[in-house]
Amino acid sequence: MAAEMVLSRRPGQPHSEVLSEADLEELGQRKPPSKTSTRDYLRKARCSASTAKSLLFRFIPVLRWLPRYPVKDWLLGDIASGFSVGIMHLPQGLAYALLAGLPPVTGLYSSFYPVFLYFFFGTSRHNSVGPFAVISVMIGSLTDSLVPSDDFLEFVNGTNVTVVNEAQRDAARVELVATITVLTGIFQVALGLLQFGFVVTYLSDPLVRGYTTAASVHVLISQLKNVFGVSVGEHSGPLSLFVVSEGLTDTLESPDVTFIEICKKLPETNVGTLVTAIIAMVAIFIVKELNHKFSAKLPMPIPIELITIIISTGISYGVNLNSKFGISVVGNIPSGMKPPVVPNTRYFGQVVGNAFAIAVVGYAICISLGKIFALKHGYKVDSNQELIALGLSNFLGGFFQCFAISCSMSRSLVQESTGGNSQVAGVISSLVILVTILKIGELFHDLPKAILSAIIIINLKGMFKQFTDFRTLWKSNRVDLMIWVVTFVATLLLNLDIGLGASVAFALLTVIFRTQLPHYSILGRVTDTDVYKDVAEYEKAQEVPGIKIFRSSSTIYFANVEMYSDALKKKSGINVDRLIEKKKKALKKLKKQQKKAQKEKAKRKKDTDAECNGPGVAVIELSGEEGGTPPEPTLRSLGLPQPNFHAVILDFSPVNFVDTVSIKILKNIFKDFHEIEVDVFVASCPASVFAQLERGNFFSSTITKHCFFPSVNDAVLHLNGRTCPASENLSTKM
Amino acid sequence: MAAEMVLSRRPGQPHSEVLSEADLEELGQRKPPSKTSTRDYLRKARCSASTAKSLLFRFIPVLRWLPRYPVKDWLLGDIASGFSVGIMHLPQGLAYALLAGLPPVTGLYSSFYPVFLYFFFGTSRHNSVGPFAVISVMIGSLTDSLVPSDDFLEFVNGTNVTVVNEAQRDAARVELVATITVLTGIFQVALGLLQFGFVVTYLSDPLVRGYTTAASVHVLISQLKNVFGVSVGEHSGPLSLFVVSEGLTDTLESPDVTFIEICKKLPETNVGTLVTAIIAMVAIFIVKELNHKFSAKLPMPIPIELITIIISTGISYGVNLNSKFGISVVGNIPSGMKPPVVPNTRYFGQVVGNAFAIAVVGYAICISLGKIFALKHGYKVDSNQELIALGLSNFLGGFFQCFAISCSMSRSLVQESTGGNSQVAGVISSLVILVTILKIGELFHDLPKAILSAIIIINLKGMFKQFTDFRTLWKSNRVDLMIWVVTFVATLLLNLDIGLGASVAFALLTVIFRTQLPHYSILGRVTDTDVYKDVAEYEKAQEVPGIKIFRSSSTIYFANVEMYSDALKKKSGINVDRLIEKKKKALKKLKKQQKKAQKEKAKRKKDTDAECNGPGVAVIELSGEEGGTPPEPTLRSLGLPQPNFHAVILDFSPVNFVDTVSIKILKNIFKDFHEIEVDVFVASCPASVFAQLERGNFFSSTITKHCFFPSVNDAVLHLNGRTCPASENLSTKM
Repeated sequence: MAAEMVLSRRPGQPHSEVLSEADLEELGQRKPPSKTSTRDYLRKARCSASTAKSLLFRFIPVLRWLPRYPVKDWLLGDIASGFSVGIMHLPQGLAYALLAGLPPVTGLYSSFYPVFLYFFFGTSRHNSVGPFAVISVMIGSLTDSLVPSDDFLEFVNGTNVTVVNEAQRDAARVELVATITVLTGIFQVALGLLQFGFVVTYLSDPLVRGYTTAASVHVLISQLKNVFGVSVGEHSGPLSLFVVSEGLTDTLESPDVTFIEICKKLPETNVGTLVTAIIAMVAIFIVKELNHKFSAKLPMPIPIELITIIISTGISYGVNLNSKFGISVVGNIPSGMKPPVVPNTRYFGQVVGNAFAIAVVGYAICISLGKIFALKHGYKVDSNQELIALGLSNFLGGFFQCFAISCSMSRSLVQESTGGNSQVAGVISSLVILVTILKIGELFHDLPKAILSAIIIINLKGMFKQFTDFRTLWKSNRVDLMIWVVTFVATLLLNLDIGLGASVAFALLTVIFRTQLPHYSILGRVTDTDVYKDVAEYEKAQEVPGIKIFRSSSTIYFANVEMYSDALKKKSGINVDRLIEKKKKALKKLKKQQKKAQKEKAKRKKDTDAECNGPGVAVIELSGEEGGTPPEPTLRSLGLPQPNFHAVILDFSPVNFVDTVSIKILKNIFKDFHEIEVDVFVASCPASVFAQLERGNFFSSTITKHCFFPSVNDAVLHLNGRTCPASENLSTKM
Repeated sequence: MAAEMVLSRRPGQPHSEVLSEADLEELGQRKPPSKTSTRDYLRKARCSASTAKSLLFRFIPVLRWLPRYPVKDWLLGDIASGFSVGIMHLPQGLAYALLAGLPPVTGLYSSFYPVFLYFFFGTSRHNSVGPFAVISVMIGSLTDSLVPSDDFLEFVNGTNVTVVNEAQRDAARVELVATITVLTGIFQVALGLLQFGFVVTYLSDPLVRGYTTAASVHVLISQLKNVFGVSVGEHSGPLSLFVVSEGLTDTLESPDVTFIEICKKLPETNVGTLVTAIIAMVAIFIVKELNHKFSAKLPMPIPIELITIIISTGISYGVNLNSKFGISVVGNIPSGMKPPVVPNTRYFGQVVGNAFAIAVVGYAICISLGKIFALKHGYKVDSNQELIALGLSNFLGGFFQCFAISCSMSRSLVQESTGGNSQVAGVISSLVILVTILKIGELFHDLPKAILSAIIIINLKGMFKQFTDFRTLWKSNRVDLMIWVVTFVATLLLNLDIGLGASVAFALLTVIFRTQLPHYSILGRVTDTDVYKDVAEYEKAQEVPGIKIFRSSSTIYFANVEMYSDALKKKSGINVDRLIEKKKKALKKLKKQQKKAQKEKAKRKKDTDAECNGPGVAVIELSGEEGGTPPEPTLRSLGLPQPNFHAVILDFSPVNFVDTVSIKILKNIFKDFHEIEVDVFVASCPASVFAQLERGNFFSSTITKHCFFPSVNDAVLHLNGRTCPASENLSTKM
C-alpha cells in the first residue's frame, strides 16, 4: 500500500495547495496504532479504502488537480484557449476525416469524445489531443486497402454506368476504423498498465522526425486528387518504387504510384476545384503567417481555417458549385449523437499490427509534445498515465465512431499561446465541437472537399520544415542522419506500418554499427599527472617505458572482440603471432636436438654402463634431466627478439559487459602475451564486468585477480615497483 | 603495390625457409633506383610482375607453402593421416548424400573435388573439408521441398500402384543441388574478396552451438525413417509446432510433424531394417569409444565405419536382404567421373536465401574449427582466404554434381591426431576417394541404407554433447544461454534457414538489452587514493562532501538516456523535478508580487508626480528597477530547501558514443541542475565522444568546455579549489 502511495504521489504533479495534499498524505501514510488489535478491522478497512482512493487518484488525475484548480488565475485563459482550439478542431476534424477515408462527421466525433475523456485521465496540461494528420493517413491507408471503393460499385438504374455506393462504403469503413481505434486503445492501456511507456524510447527523435516527414509526403499526395478534382484508384500495402508490374499494382500502394496516376490524369483536372483549392491555400497560408508574425499582438490567432470553410460553404451553397462546376463537396453531415456500437471483432486479425503501430506512433507524438511543454512550464507528465489516458480515449471513442487520435502540434501550440493552463482548455474545446455536432454540423453540407485538402496541406508546413533536419543532422551527427534518411525512405516506400518496423530495426542496428568500428588507442601518461590519454591525440601524453596501455572506444562483445584482439596486437608494435610461431618452431627444434642429444647420451651411457655395470647412476642422471621440469626456455635463450615492453595494460573503463565469446578471446590475449613473456593487466574494470568475468570462468591459475587494478595509474605504479594504495585498499573487496 | 605486398605477407603464414621468403621480399620491396628515369619501364614491368606474383601467392597459398614443405618431417604423417581420413570420407560421404536427399555417388564426388581443390587454396592445415551433417541437412530440407518425391510418382505398368521414379527424381535433385552449391560458392568467394570474413563474427559461439545442436535434432529425426524402415512424406518450409491443420501441412515442415508421422507409422516398422540399424549403431558406438579410450596406443583409429559398411554390404549381398526382408539398399553407384555440367540458373531465385545461409554457416564452422587448430599449433588461418578457398571448392564442385561442403569436426580431429601436418593429408584423402569412385564404388550397391543412418546418428554424438552447454552457460552467462536457447528453439521450429536469420537478429538484440538495463552508481573516493568507486559496493569508497559523482555501467544512447537522467536525479537524493517546479511557482509568485508592488509604487508615484511635477526622478527610479536586470533570486532567497551538494560529476568513461537524443537529454540535465544551483561537470570523456558532442552543438554559453575534466579526480580537485595539473596540461588540447 505504501508503494502504491508513493506511486500515486509522483514527483512533479500539480499540487498547488498544501492542505489537500497533507490531507491525502495523512490518509495514506498515517501509521495506525500498532498494538491495539481491536482496531485492526477498522485499520484494514481504512487502508483498503485509502488504497482504492490512491489508485483512483493515480488513474484519474483530474480528481487530484481539479479540486486545487486555481479558478481565479487560470479559468479565463483556459476558456479563451479552449474556444480558439475548438474553432481549430472543427475544420481539422472534417479534414482529417477526409484523410482517413471516412465521412466528415467522424472527424467531429473524434474531436469531441476523446478530447473530453482526456480531460479526466491526461496529465499533460497543454497537449491538444484529437485528430492528427499522421495517424489519420495511417488509418486512411488501411481503409483504402481493406474497404476499397471498388467493392461498392453499383450500376446506375438501367444504365451501364457504375457509381460507388458511398453510404454502404462509409458504413463499412466506419465499422473497420472503430475496430482499429478500439484495438489501438487496448494496446495503449495495456502498455500503460504494464509500465511499458519506455517502448517509445525506441522511437528516437531522428526516427520520429523522419517518419512524420515521410507521412506528410503520404498525406500531401493523398490530397492531390482532391486539389485537382480527379479520381484515382486506391492503392495500399507495401510497394516498391521500381516494380510496378501489372500483376502487382493491386497489392501495391505507393505515393509514387498514386502520384504517377495523378500526373497521368492531370488533363482531366477540374479547374473549378483547383482554383478553389489554390485560393484557399493562399488565403490560409498568408493569414497563418500573419498570425505567426503578430502572435504577440493578437489576443488569439485569426481562425482563418474556420473563416475559410464558412465563406466557402456559403459560396458553394449560393453558387451551387457542386452541380454547376462538378466540385465535390463534403455532403451530408448528420446531426446529433449516435448510440455506441460494439466494434466488429472480425477485423481484429487483419488490423492488429497496424493498430499497434498506430498506438505507438500516436503515443510517441503525444509524449514528446507533452514533455516539451512540461519542461517549459516546469511540471511533469507521467508517461505511463499518458498511455492509459490516450488508450482510454481511443478505446471508448471507438464505440462512438471515432478514429484513433493523437496530439496535434499546431493545435497544442495555439492552446498554449492563447493562455491555456490546464486540461480545462481541452474540455472547453470539446464542448465547442459538441455544439457543432448537435446544431451546426449539417450546415457544412456544401463545403468543397478541396477546401479541406487546402487546410490539410497548409498544416503540413511544419512537417515539411523537418526537411531542414537533413542539414542540421549532417552537421551534428551522421549516424542519426542515416536513421532519419532510412526512416524517411522506408516509410515512403514500404508504407507507414512496415516502414515503421523497418526503421526501428535499423535504428537499433546502428547501435551495433557504432560499436563495430571502434577507435583503438595506446595511452600514455600526461606529464606530471596520473591521467592517461591517447598518445596519438595528446602531445603531452607519453608512453610509459616498457608498458603498453591499450583502450578501445567501445564495449567489447562477440561482434567486435576479435577486432579488439587484432588491434591490440597491431598497436603493440610487434608481430605477436609471428613471434609465437617462431617460438614454437624454435622449441620444436630444441626438443628434437635435446632428444637427439639424449639418445646419443643414452647410447654413450649404455656403452659406459656396459663398461661400468652401474645402473644407479643412469637413473639419477635421467631423473635429473627429465623429471625436474627444466625451466621453460626464454625467447632470449631461443635466440628470438624480445618485445620492447614487458607488460600490457587493458583499460576496461569503456567495457559495459562481457559475453562468453569475449571471455574466450580475452583468455587468448593473456595466453598469447604470456607466450612472448609479456604480462597482461586489466585496469578500471567495472564491478559488474568483473562479476561477469568471474561467472564466466575467466580466472585460472595463470589469469588471477591480481592482474586487475582499480585504475591504470595503479597498475603502472605496481609495475614500476611502487606501492599502489588503491589496490591495497580494494584488493580484499575484489 | 606495397599494400598488396603487406597483405600477401600476412603474419603467421608458414614460412619455414627463410631463404625463399627473403627472395620474395626482395622482389616485392627492393627500392628501384629512384632517379634513373631510363630504368622506369623496367621497374614498372618488374613491379607489375611482382604484384601479379604476390597476388598469386596470396590467393593460391599452396604456391607459398608447398616449395617449403618439409618432406622428411611431415610427409609420412600426412600420408597416414590422409588414408585414415579418406577411409572416413567414404562412409560419411555416402551417408551425408542420403541426408541431403541425393544419390550416394554425389557424396563421393563431394568428398573428392572440393577436398582436392582446398589443397590449393586453403590455409588451415588440419581442417578436413568435405560433407558435413549440418550443411547436408540444410540441403536436404531444400531438396525435399523443391523436388519432392511426390512429383515423380508413376503407375507401375498396367496396375494402379504408384512408385517413385527415383532416377528422374534424383536427376532433378542433383541439378537443384548443383545450383545451390555453385551459388554458395559464389557467395563465399564474393565475401572473401570483399574482405567480409567478419560477417561470421555475428555468428557468436553460443549461437553456432545452439544452431548445430538444433540441426542435429533435424538430422536425427530425418534418419529415423531409415532406421525403422518406414516411408513418410517429405515436409519442408517454416512450420509451427502447434498449427498442423490440414491445409498447412503441405507447406509446413518440422521435425515434429515428421516425428509424429513416424510415430504413427511405427507399427509398420521393418524389423529387419531396425535390427540392422541397431546392431550397426551398437558396434560403431562401442568401437568409437574404444578408439577414443586407446587413442594414444593406436597408430590410427579402427575404421569401424568402413568395416561396418563392408561387412554389411557383404551380408546384404549374400543373404539378399533387399528382396528377402525388404531392407532398402543404397542402389546403383555409377563408376567413373562425370563431365562438368553448367548449373541450372532457373533455381537461382528460389534458393538464393538458402545458399547464403549455407555459405555463412559452412564458413562459420570451418573458420571456428580452423582457428582452434591454428591456436593449438601456432599458425594462423587467413579468414578471408578461407572463405575464398571454401567458395572455390564449392563453386567448382557444383559443376561436378557435388553438394555444398564445410568441415567435419570428427574427420578433422582424426586428421590431426593421426599425424596430419598440412593440406597434403587432405589431398591424399581425396585420392583415396578418387580410387573409390573409379573402381570400388559400384561394389556398395547392396549396402543397406539403415547402416548409413546408423553412421550418421552415431556421428551426431558430439553434437548432442552440446546440450551440456545449457548447464555451462547457466553458470557462466545467462544472456548467452538465452541466445543458445532461442537459437535452438528457433532453428528447431522455423527450420534451418529462417531460424538462422531469427537467431542472428536475436543475438544482436541482446546487445541492446544488455545496455538497456544498466547499473547506475554514485562514486566515492577510496580512502587515501585518487580512485573513485561505487559507494554501495566498496566500504572504503566515501562520497566527497558536496559532490555527487555519477556513473552508468553502460554507454548512453537514445534507448536508455532517459533512464540515465532519471537515475541521476533519483540517486542524487533530492527530488530535482519537484524542486524546480516549486522554484518556478515561487518565482511566478514573486513576479506577481513585484508587479503588484510596482503598480502600487507607480500609482503612488503618479500621485507624488502629480504633486511634484518632476518626471526625471520617476524615469531614474524605473530604470533602476527594471533595466538593471536584478540578480536572479536564489533558492535560499525564495525560501526553498537547498540541495546538500553543489556539484554533480558525470563519469563518462563507459560512454562509447553519443547521438542527438542523448545530447538533448544531457543538455536538459545541465539545465535542470543549474536551475537548482548545482554545477554539472563531465569527467573522463573519451576524445571521440567529445568530438561528437562538439559536432552535436552540445556546448553553449552555459555548457562550456571548462565543464570537462580528464579524470574524476581532476574534477574533484578543481571543485575543492586545488590545482589540477592534468586539466592544465590538457586544457589547450581539448
